Amino acid sequence: MTTHFSDRISDVPRSFIREILKVAIDPAVISFAGGLPNRDFFPVAALQEATHRVFETAGKEALQYANSEGDIVLREMIAQRYRQKKGLEVKVENILITSGSQQGLDLMGKILLNEGDPVAIEEPGYLGAIQAFSVYRARFHPVPVSEEGMDTEALAKMLKKEKPKLLYVVPNFQNPSGITYPDANRDEVAGVLQGSDTLLIEDDPYGELRFTGKHQRSFAQRLPEQTVMLGSFSKVVAPGLRIGWIVAPDAIMDKLIVAKQATDLHTQYFGQRILRQFFLENDLDTHIATILKVYDRQRLAMLRSMEAYFPKEVKCTRPEGGMFLWMTLPQGLSAMSLFHRAIEEKVAFVPGDPFYTHRKEVNTLRLNFSCVDETGIDTGMARLGAAVKKELL
Amino acid sequence: MTTHFSDRISDVPRSFIREILKVAIDPAVISFAGGLPNRDFFPVAALQEATHRVFETAGKEALQYANSEGDIVLREMIAQRYRQKKGLEVKVENILITSGSQQGLDLMGKILLNEGDPVAIEEPGYLGAIQAFSVYRARFHPVPVSEEGMDTEALAKMLKKEKPKLLYVVPNFQNPSGITYPDANRDEVAGVLQGSDTLLIEDDPYGELRFTGKHQRSFAQRLPEQTVMLGSFSKVVAPGLRIGWIVAPDAIMDKLIVAKQATDLHTQYFGQRILRQFFLENDLDTHIATILKVYDRQRLAMLRSMEAYFPKEVKCTRPEGGMFLWMTLPQGLSAMSLFHRAIEEKVAFVPGDPFYTHRKEVNTLRLNFSCVDETGIDTGMARLGAAVKKELL
Repeated sequence: MTTHFSDRISDVPRSFIREILKVAIDPAVISFAGGLPNRDFFPVAALQEATHRVFETAGKEALQYANSEGDIVLREMIAQRYRQKKGLEVKVENILITSGSQQGLDLMGKILLNEGDPVAIEEPGYLGAIQAFSVYRARFHPVPVSEEGMDTEALAKMLKKEKPKLLYVVPNFQNPSGITYPDANRDEVAGVLQGSDTLLIEDDPYGELRFTGKHQRSFAQRLPEQTVMLGSFSKVVAPGLRIGWIVAPDAIMDKLIVAKQATDLHTQYFGQRILRQFFLENDLDTHIATILKVYDRQRLAMLRSMEAYFPKEVKCTRPEGGMFLWMTLPQGLSAMSLFHRAIEEKVAFVPGDPFYTHRKEVNTLRLNFSCVDETGIDTGMARLGAAVKKELL
Repeated sequence: MTTHFSDRISDVPRSFIREILKVAIDPAVISFAGGLPNRDFFPVAALQEATHRVFETAGKEALQYANSEGDIVLREMIAQRYRQKKGLEVKVENILITSGSQQGLDLMGKILLNEGDPVAIEEPGYLGAIQAFSVYRARFHPVPVSEEGMDTEALAKMLKKEKPKLLYVVPNFQNPSGITYPDANRDEVAGVLQGSDTLLIEDDPYGELRFTGKHQRSFAQRLPEQTVMLGSFSKVVAPGLRIGWIVAPDAIMDKLIVAKQATDLHTQYFGQRILRQFFLENDLDTHIATILKVYDRQRLAMLRSMEAYFPKEVKCTRPEGGMFLWMTLPQGLSAMSLFHRAIEEKVAFVPGDPFYTHRKEVNTLRLNFSCVDETGIDTGMARLGAAVKKELL
């Protein structure tokens, strides 16, 4: 028989990262290519304790089907944290628990996008969002971002011309670039959006991973009726549970719940109960402080080795948090070409290409600093610096 | 601002069951409305043991991101069970772990369906499939099923005329009707499909819950290249983990993996490791035998009380397994109208309406027998019988 696939699935870029990581599987390769939190700092013992308690007190319940919105107590805890950490008032009814925040993207695409609908996205932008919205055949309109935040002139121009249905941003320690939008830039972005029919999706998986500098206020505080927030426990607790959430205004939440049911009925309840118990028994801030200390040391090690081993023409972002640096090679160099040379030198990274919707053969690349210790970073960066120098010859 | 939703989301029927269950929340109501396995027979202690071992031996790994296909050992275990139980040879590469088998439906819709594509479905059919395919704007073509299986004459006629992209079936102890396609009927269905471009989705969440009668061979044995199988641990272990799987031919699996990544990256890995450990340490057949004994007693209690309390004109399926009976009221009666009367009598069920894509105000209804004990079944059925008699007046 001949299988005729949907048009939409042919539009979805294969995960380049996935393909590339196959090359990097050699244990001698030091990999800055991953996007993983460091597993050495998962709260394994505390989660084990919490899980034990769930089995003892609510085993049958935790293993049964549950409602589509998610556990009410866990949602209350999320609301409380928004209140404490961001001064944001979020109602429990406006929170939906998702199977990781990647699912938040899928659900938003599902309820909003018709074929060919315009979607504005950061350039460079999060690969997972490009994939998720491609499924719904979005027409992408990239808006440049840098350490100054989003290019609001480009945004205003594009918004006027294209009237995108949504603008997707990761304003804190962005994936892939590590940049954060300063408060003043957020004010400008909000000013441009205000009064338009463009919905803002503010994805914030890394916001709690700030090593230095000052917390910048959420878009939800500026455009409460126009902002959908995505959140995740993957970077602050553990990703293997695949538990994230969406915060959305009433009308949108209503549709999200219908879509959630049709998609997977509900997010695994057992993991929700474990997290809820974990938060009852542990102070998340204390745990996060441990992660911050390590990641910050590794970030600094990476920046130091940049200066030590790389030609001056190579530029790099200086993120105040998160897990990534973004490197820009001199004009004319190709990150893809560097990648192949780097693999020979036994070091890996992600070439910038998959983070662009409209550019190829770029000279930018993503470096992850959360998963390699300081010695490894020094060795790996020395190798990468050597590879860059060879490319420049 | 005005939010413009996608066309697709307005096509998705809200879960009627969900709405209806709100009415049945009164603890005095005996509910045959649920579709849940009986939580009293979840293997809580064994899962607790297995979870403990996962924490002790692989805590960090189990809590990290994982690959999109799913845990390789768990997939090997699934392949082995197909071999042992069904004599089916399934390759590990053709198994994808999903977030419950509902997600299998979403992914299949995603990779196959363009707007308006014809989809053949059983009448009555599984509500979750109707919802999942509605998201992708399927045009449904129902094919009647009964205790004789699928109406192959209707199937052949429809297939010729509509050339559906897929045919979705639950051939063992179907939800909602409880019916099973006899082997001879399966041969006929396969004969009709053979040579066509219609893909068969064989969803089998209840297949292992056979109380009596003989196992009927899978469609995958008849149409190996044309069949996609969906499976689930929800009914034989526990649904709260939300772990199911898809078995698909190579070309389809390739697309499914792309779709899976874009949808939620991967199914929660922690739960996959728990299940894998559980299967290492326990004999699933022994556990299933316990469930079977209880469900069978409850099924027989329901059939007995049908005869005791209901007018002769009321008909009912006599399933050999699963969790549901399907009742047909005399012509002219409405299951919806009976529902309201039943609630007054403190008993609930699901009216047949949401299981049809093209009919309303039907005289059929679904009764669940897995969640109420024999005494409760007797009392509830007496109430329901009384309600039916009042409706007949």
